[in-house]
Amino acid sequence: MSEKRTEIGNLGEFGLIDHLNKNVKVKNATSVKGIGDDAAVIDAGSENVKVVTTDLLIEGVHFDLSYMPLPHMGFKAVAVNISDVAAMNAVPKQITVSIGLSNRFSVEAVEALYEGIHAACEHYGVDLVGGDTTASRSGLVISITAIGEAKKDEVVYRDGAKANDILCVTGDLGGALVGLQILEREKQVFLANPEMKPELDKYTLVTGRQLRPDARMDIIHELKELGVKPTSMMDISDGLASEIFHICKASNVGATIYEDKLPIDKQTFDTAVELNLDPITCVLNGGEDYELLFTISQEDFPKLEKHADIHFIGHITKPEEGKYLVTKSGTAVQIKAQGWKHF
Amino acid sequence: MSEKRTEIGNLGEFGLIDHLNKNVKVKNATSVKGIGDDAAVIDAGSENVKVVTTDLLIEGVHFDLSYMPLPHMGFKAVAVNISDVAAMNAVPKQITVSIGLSNRFSVEAVEALYEGIHAACEHYGVDLVGGDTTASRSGLVISITAIGEAKKDEVVYRDGAKANDILCVTGDLGGALVGLQILEREKQVFLANPEMKPELDKYTLVTGRQLRPDARMDIIHELKELGVKPTSMMDISDGLASEIFHICKASNVGATIYEDKLPIDKQTFDTAVELNLDPITCVLNGGEDYELLFTISQEDFPKLEKHADIHFIGHITKPEEGKYLVTKSGTAVQIKAQGWKHF
Repeated sequence: MSEKRTEIGNLGEFGLIDHLNKNVKVKNATSVKGIGDDAAVIDAGSENVKVVTTDLLIEGVHFDLSYMPLPHMGFKAVAVNISDVAAMNAVPKQITVSIGLSNRFSVEAVEALYEGIHAACEHYGVDLVGGDTTASRSGLVISITAIGEAKKDEVVYRDGAKANDILCVTGDLGGALVGLQILEREKQVFLANPEMKPELDKYTLVTGRQLRPDARMDIIHELKELGVKPTSMMDISDGLASEIFHICKASNVGATIYEDKLPIDKQTFDTAVELNLDPITCVLNGGEDYELLFTISQEDFPKLEKHADIHFIGHITKPEEGKYLVTKSGTAVQIKAQGWKHF
Repeated sequence: MSEKRTEIGNLGEFGLIDHLNKNVKVKNATSVKGIGDDAAVIDAGSENVKVVTTDLLIEGVHFDLSYMPLPHMGFKAVAVNISDVAAMNAVPKQITVSIGLSNRFSVEAVEALYEGIHAACEHYGVDLVGGDTTASRSGLVISITAIGEAKKDEVVYRDGAKANDILCVTGDLGGALVGLQILEREKQVFLANPEMKPELDKYTLVTGRQLRPDARMDIIHELKELGVKPTSMMDISDGLASEIFHICKASNVGATIYEDKLPIDKQTFDTAVELNLDPITCVLNGGEDYELLFTISQEDFPKLEKHADIHFIGHITKPEEGKYLVTKSGTAVQIKAQGWKHF
């Protein structure tokens, strides 16, 4: 090995992933889609394919159990994987759950975690079919793999967006980030003075977005019923701006979105202002909303036009037109993908 | 949540897994086999099924990078999952790799780890199709999921062993444990006096068993060529005794094995003696050999009789006959499943 030392922070998470996988080529005929989408796609030898996605969650990096109750943590760990299955336009069927536990955790604590895992299995109709349980040196480690199913021609990738397609997002954005800031603030207040009771009542929507995200399988089923197959799709886990970059890169297109079309809940907006955060920055760069970002052909617009929970935030452009946000005052500002950097 | 606190150590790893999953029932038609075997089995809607297995490896619990070179670690992390696919009589096709990295790791270190992962993909003919990369608070975390394929009627479970079937193991056992003890001893010598060069030359076989295990896909392919479908099978990751318990429990049978039939390599034997370890205890309770334990019908015996690397160590009995080791002196000793306890 060379003596050279390059810090991972220099590359960032996406840079590191690109760097490690630059020479990876799939060889097996059943590997329909490898690295580079929300999930891998594996041929099943029938009209269906399997989609496979996995997430590794580490205490102190991805979650803080001082405000995240264990049942919520269990539910969320499953939901974030289901969200990736949804983003492929597939239906989740199985999960495996591996956990690493330090000796701080009692059997009762693990039961509380699994209460949430089982509740999520019930909610999403998936079976817990395997996993691994082991000791950990520091804190809780959760690694979940979700397996879903879709008809071969129903799978939606990130690379199918075309110029003039309409960019859609579900639900509202920024809430999970704002909720996290509130939980962090109240934790600091509590640490400074344990007599203080955290003031969380007026923030239940935003804290709920952080503590109890729900994968949008409802939208996947509705799109099917309405006869709409998105041209591209992914879930919003790292922030809208970052995901738009992923879709534009994979599809080789540009995008223009409009500030006044971005969906933000009133409580998210007000709380962001209270925290001295720019609400639009929260919408663009806040992670963990687990809503869906997708593109549709113009001809499908009438089918979704009146949907209460789908918002049309802009459109796809030619690659040379770049990625822009048009502000309320009409100025076009270049979008920067900030995303989450754990390193 | 109740105030009761039960330590996980009271249940042990297998006890905890049983406890958490006692009420888990699979509901989806595609979930052919859930928790309780080397891998889950998922219907693919064709003549083939998919098998899925996952392992979570945590630095300081499962491996020590002070004597485990990173490329070896990458290879081994893949191999242990391939071994579980092999144990289902399936052929591995895809893996996902998730890693958690503390800031002690440079890009070059991660490259060294992936060098081993890519080498294993090449060796086993599997595609790396996805994963997750994230920060970790302490050390390296590796979570790998392997996906394999088999014809529906070719899958071998743990629960098919019948009285009078012959118990077979591949390769030799105990080497990985003895190798680990040598590596630990030399590490302590080095820590006590960094001028000392570790004396490892005469132990290359046993240290190799620990550092470079190879999943026995060769045996899976040979069994197919010889027209032998084992009646039950699993891989030996926790020690022969523990695995015999698993097969006996799943198949509701007993087993008798013979000390003089247990395969042990000369270097493993000599090194165990040097370390004041009982070689037979190393064979019975040493983990991480990643050989295969399987049962065959008596009628298949002639097909395997002359195989150089398959050893016939005993036979399956009725459940009420229990689990016994017949020593060289002819005494029948009850087998205790020790296995590995990380908690």
